[in-house]
Amino acid sequence: MYRAKFVRALFPGRFQPPHKGHGHAIKWILEELSDEVIIVIGSAQESHTFQNPMTAGERVYAIKLMLKDMNIDLNRVYIIPVPDIFMNRVWPRFVEVFSPSFDVVVTRNPLVRELFEELGYKVVPQPLVNRDTYVGTKIRRLMVEGGNWEQYLTSSVASYIKEIRLVDRLKLTLGSE
Amino acid sequence: MYRAKFVRALFPGRFQPPHKGHGHAIKWILEELSDEVIIVIGSAQESHTFQNPMTAGERVYAIKLMLKDMNIDLNRVYIIPVPDIFMNRVWPRFVEVFSPSFDVVVTRNPLVRELFEELGYKVVPQPLVNRDTYVGTKIRRLMVEGGNWEQYLTSSVASYIKEIRLVDRLKLTLGSE
Amino acid sequence: MYRAKFVRALFPGRFQPPHKGHGHAIKWILEELSDEVIIVIGSAQESHTFQNPMTAGERVYAIKLMLKDMNIDLNRVYIIPVPDIFMNRVWPRFVEVFSPSFDVVVTRNPLVRELFEELGYKVVPQPLVNRDTYVGTKIRRLMVEGGNWEQYLTSSVASYIKEIRLVDRLKLTLGSE
Amino acid sequence: MYRAKFVRALFPGRFQPPHKGHGHAIKWILEELSDEVIIVIGSAQESHTFQNPMTAGERVYAIKLMLKDMNIDLNRVYIIPVPDIFMNRVWPRFVEVFSPSFDVVVTRNPLVRELFEELGYKVVPQPLVNRDTYVGTKIRRLMVEGGNWEQYLTSSVASYIKEIRLVDRLKLTLGSE
Amino acid sequence: MYRAKFVRALFPGRFQPPHKGHGHAIKWILEELSDEVIIVIGSAQESHTFQNPMTAGERVYAIKLMLKDMNIDLNRVYIIPVPDIFMNRVWPRFVEVFSPSFDVVVTRNPLVRELFEELGYKVVPQPLVNRDTYVGTKIRRLMVEGGNWEQYLTSSVASYIKEIRLVDRLKLTLGSE
Amino acid sequence: MYRAKFVRALFPGRFQPPHKGHGHAIKWILEELSDEVIIVIGSAQESHTFQNPMTAGERVYAIKLMLKDMNIDLNRVYIIPVPDIFMNRVWPRFVEVFSPSFDVVVTRNPLVRELFEELGYKVVPQPLVNRDTYVGTKIRRLMVEGGNWEQYLTSSVASYIKEIRLVDRLKLTLGSE
Repeated sequence: MYRAKFVRALFPGRFQPPHKGHGHAIKWILEELSDEVIIVIGSAQESHTFQNPMTAGERVYAIKLMLKDMNIDLNRVYIIPVPDIFMNRVWPRFVEVFSPSFDVVVTRNPLVRELFEELGYKVVPQPLVNRDTYVGTKIRRLMVEGGNWEQYLTSSVASYIKEIRLVDRLKLTLGSE
Repeated sequence: MYRAKFVRALFPGRFQPPHKGHGHAIKWILEELSDEVIIVIGSAQESHTFQNPMTAGERVYAIKLMLKDMNIDLNRVYIIPVPDIFMNRVWPRFVEVFSPSFDVVVTRNPLVRELFEELGYKVVPQPLVNRDTYVGTKIRRLMVEGGNWEQYLTSSVASYIKEIRLVDRLKLTLGSE
Repeated sequence: MYRAKFVRALFPGRFQPPHKGHGHAIKWILEELSDEVIIVIGSAQESHTFQNPMTAGERVYAIKLMLKDMNIDLNRVYIIPVPDIFMNRVWPRFVEVFSPSFDVVVTRNPLVRELFEELGYKVVPQPLVNRDTYVGTKIRRLMVEGGNWEQYLTSSVASYIKEIRLVDRLKLTLGSE
Repeated sequence: MYRAKFVRALFPGRFQPPHKGHGHAIKWILEELSDEVIIVIGSAQESHTFQNPMTAGERVYAIKLMLKDMNIDLNRVYIIPVPDIFMNRVWPRFVEVFSPSFDVVVTRNPLVRELFEELGYKVVPQPLVNRDTYVGTKIRRLMVEGGNWEQYLTSSVASYIKEIRLVDRLKLTLGSE
Repeated sequence: MYRAKFVRALFPGRFQPPHKGHGHAIKWILEELSDEVIIVIGSAQESHTFQNPMTAGERVYAIKLMLKDMNIDLNRVYIIPVPDIFMNRVWPRFVEVFSPSFDVVVTRNPLVRELFEELGYKVVPQPLVNRDTYVGTKIRRLMVEGGNWEQYLTSSVASYIKEIRLVDRLKLTLGSE
Repeated sequence: MYRAKFVRALFPGRFQPPHKGHGHAIKWILEELSDEVIIVIGSAQESHTFQNPMTAGERVYAIKLMLKDMNIDLNRVYIIPVPDIFMNRVWPRFVEVFSPSFDVVVTRNPLVRELFEELGYKVVPQPLVNRDTYVGTKIRRLMVEGGNWEQYLTSSVASYIKEIRLVDRLKLTLGSE
């Protein structure tokens, strides 16, 4: 794809865990949309809950593994953890603080789209790729239920998830108030 | 250097701005100490003050420029912004949350050394390279006084500093209460 | 109503959105209870959620519109946004910090009554006026379901709600995790 | 029980309210496990909610009453309130800041066990004593439903609960959004 | 002054205390610049320090007294307390959350100007009126030194300052660490 | 001393470190003023700075050692760490949350006296005992300068300070920005 001007895209998510859907989106961004992509890991302070079992650092590492598995050029990627600020309208400005400047935001989340548009950003949705299957909540549920969650992750990420025994950790979060 | 086991080092700093002293340290780490290095950008929520003029995102970007200028392999480097937590004893654990796992910490700051040692980490100092000159506070002072600050930065970082007009910003911070 | 001594009342709420029930209460306060009223807008940091769709600033503005629609004397009213502090027992003291001094609190919320009474305040309930219909949650639900929400707001507030396209924003909050 | 070395145990909980189950656990700790016990009162900033009706200070006081009722030596006990930090992985380190040093953690909560084990602590479960009945949530439910909650508390604690009219407070929390 | 379009101005400050210099600026804004003015009281969470002796609520009240003393139309004025967020770049967005929408910012503070300009706002300075004398820090110093601070305040504000015994409070702040 | 009614006193401080001056005050309180005393350890989140070198937990422990050295009855004492809230006017209410109820506050700090009096508490000063010498700042300075700091502490506290190598830690804090 030809671009007259250098373009950098922002791709926010929680990445619990990083799955092939994320990988396809990043690939599409770098092929069709922009020269570089900033992967923003939201709720970075969270871990050891069902919604957010992995620490931000584990997610940084797993995303890098996935990018390697999918032959994505790491030199074109930033991976930036950002903690929650609990103020929706302020949040995109807060993301700006942690991130190199960007020209476009990639998301299918309607609230995230609205919030970045309010700050003046162009927002585009990533293409739909098996939306049903590539959903973090569904993958985490498969993990606790003993389903085949590995199919939604690249092989190195699946191995890493096993190495850190994330499935056990996820089950722990169900037992606590 | 031969290492029997994969090693990852953590190199924390504020990088206001990232200077050649930082670059030499990172080079030394990757040559002599570890396979990968995690550059932790502290006080990530701060900007537009004399102590912390650049945003975390600007520091992420400038560090990447510096690494390229110095031909350091980006694939071996993580750059992670971490906000302040204002609790010294808890801080190294907080850094762990944002960071892939690491084996050794590189710092010459005696308090940082103490805090990571208390959490059980091995800490080593980077070699001294013109310690007098490679100091962030001194470089920022040269900026507001019209001195030759460019010499302490790699060329792309110096250009970027000019592009974002950091010297003007730094002067603004002096006029405010 | 004759009062030997100047009296100022505090009227706390979230005002999502400000409706005629709020307006009637304020009118009653200024006619029967006190010389001035402080309208405290709680959860001021929140916006773009189903519980709290409007920003505090939008609520400040809409309350002023409602007061004008109902011919309430603005000179006798303070409108003060107060963010959450997430500590129930401390909250009334926190409200005191943001507010001119007051003599009485007006609320029908049993927990709010308890918390201000614990700090030594006299608390009185506003009269019940169509309690069923004047409830923020119900009005917001009508908004997303296409019901006749306008009837519960004064005309300028209803126009403003349309101008800022709050109904669209409210629908966005349903689609996000 | 003979111990070659002085041992101090940490016993974390929310103590809403402190019940005989807690008392039996503390007794067992001091008889079988350690020389001293640190009772950590979690969620210390919370009060006046159904999950956390009592303030931390009220819990400190009620625990002391219970220890006296059960003839437990106060000289071997620390009672330390600790507010929430909302970062699971960091939390045990945060507890360390508020607490004298300890050698072992006593808990049956699987997440708490995991979090302290990650920081390197030995964790042991207290013996099960009528687990069904000694559960804070169940006792609070009995309070609002008019059941016989007193049987689960020592007599001084039950009297104190009445003195501060906690049952009324608990009911208030049900009526608020 | 004729304006084709309705204009609202934002006038931020700490107002410790509100003095005639503030009053002149507000008068000028309403005569020359805008239809309405939003007075933003910064550092609203602070009080009982030398830099910020008055609570936000006391400042709200004193500003209203000053506006009345100077015959400024209260219907054209909003007074909004805003706590600190301790992130310079995010701060103007945070102010937006608490405030009705505005078109222009009035300030002589170079950092405040920069921060609002970065968010896209037009910023204009208020005219200089005895800049030397109308400075909060100087007035507070006169208070503790027994100087003639009253001359810089309108009469009702000076009376109110005496009523709340602010000079005594200011002296207390000097004696504490 | 005869008291018709049970009295509990609050004694707030930072206890960096706990010295004989604190011990004499506590003794006086229990002999002359009240039946029980609550020792509130302020700035509990802080450690490893020159102003606050010890963690709250270390201070809890050292205070208990001091009380034993001075034969003070531990059954009459509560030791409660309280983190900073950074809002002066709210702070005494925040202390109330963490503490059993109390009737009187003991302090010579004029700001602390004012803040508790504003909340309606009676405040009394402890007697002056060698005020010059029993000052935390002075003792910490002696520590870094190699002076005779031990004389101001009871013997067990002095031993504990040596055991945790606090003097080394204090020196570290001087070398960091």
